[in-house]
Amino acid sequence: MKELKERIIHDGIVIDNRILKVDSFLNQQLDPALICHIGTEFARRFSDTPIDRIVTIESSGIAVAYAAALAMKNIPVVFARKKMPSHAMENTYHTSVYSYTKEETYEVAISKQFLPAGESVLIIDDFLASGEAALGLASLLQEAQCNVAGIGIVIEKSFQPGRQRLQEAGYRVEALAQIEKFENDRPVFNQAKS
Amino acid sequence: MKELKERIIHDGIVIDNRILKVDSFLNQQLDPALICHIGTEFARRFSDTPIDRIVTIESSGIAVAYAAALAMKNIPVVFARKKMPSHAMENTYHTSVYSYTKEETYEVAISKQFLPAGESVLIIDDFLASGEAALGLASLLQEAQCNVAGIGIVIEKSFQPGRQRLQEAGYRVEALAQIEKFENDRPVFNQAKS
Repeated sequence: MKELKERIIHDGIVIDNRILKVDSFLNQQLDPALICHIGTEFARRFSDTPIDRIVTIESSGIAVAYAAALAMKNIPVVFARKKMPSHAMENTYHTSVYSYTKEETYEVAISKQFLPAGESVLIIDDFLASGEAALGLASLLQEAQCNVAGIGIVIEKSFQPGRQRLQEAGYRVEALAQIEKFENDRPVFNQAKS
Repeated sequence: MKELKERIIHDGIVIDNRILKVDSFLNQQLDPALICHIGTEFARRFSDTPIDRIVTIESSGIAVAYAAALAMKNIPVVFARKKMPSHAMENTYHTSVYSYTKEETYEVAISKQFLPAGESVLIIDDFLASGEAALGLASLLQEAQCNVAGIGIVIEKSFQPGRQRLQEAGYRVEALAQIEKFENDRPVFNQAKS
């Protein structure tokens, strides 16, 4: 997605050839026009498959998931909560996710009532790196007896194992910008794929 | 806002005449059509005042703030982070907010670069009860030398002191549904105001 890649080059900040900060349009400040176009692009890429529902994780996935849901004729969005209070766990599907960025494990949980069995569900998230978060959400969906229609990612770090892990598990991955590597604190995109 | 009040009556769950759960359309599952209409209604109510930017708090404010920003010709949205890691605090405006619901204090923080001085900023949040969160955001905006253009709330508990505290501090409050009281675990709306 050309507009997104241009924005990453223009406004993304790379730290130590390792961390990409996109706080100015995705992770703390949102550019509504760009987010809307991202939603439309997800809808276009997954237009060949039936989707009943979108699942994401708070907080940075919410706006793009909502934008995609609008573009997909108002299907419902559900966002997994991080660290839901333990007293609420009994009526939820939940699993542990390890964050390599933050070097900590957190719980993600979704109330069972919002994952009806038999639905086709699209997972959307802002970043794909190790694949931990997406695999965690996919395991919740399996437990809920939902079909994982695919995994839509805004920014993929292709030099990390996330895509391979997801594809080996049988999931279709669509990423709107794929970063092959960082070089001199600048992103280099995988031109062939995205 | 009639559609919202009908939805609260139909799908909201009141516990102990005290807590209103709207997880099925606002707080964990999102109904994109309703959220879109909420955004349009915020834009309509504040159409008489110039607004440069919308500020909200993760997570439940994000979708409605984004919907309002779309309806207001794509102005930027910034969401305050809860409990941002302390090493990032130095370049942020931050303050403590006490949650009476959760009985805990949390920090809210916004990077200074996303609150340029002199802008007119609309605060949007899902609930207004004690007013703690809105007052916290307003204090960040004051510190950033922004003008608080108003405070837009999806659901107000009018029997709690939030509105009065905000109005006494000089802020304009617009709530799309105002709950006067709970009776037999059902909400009673303040018909005169909202």
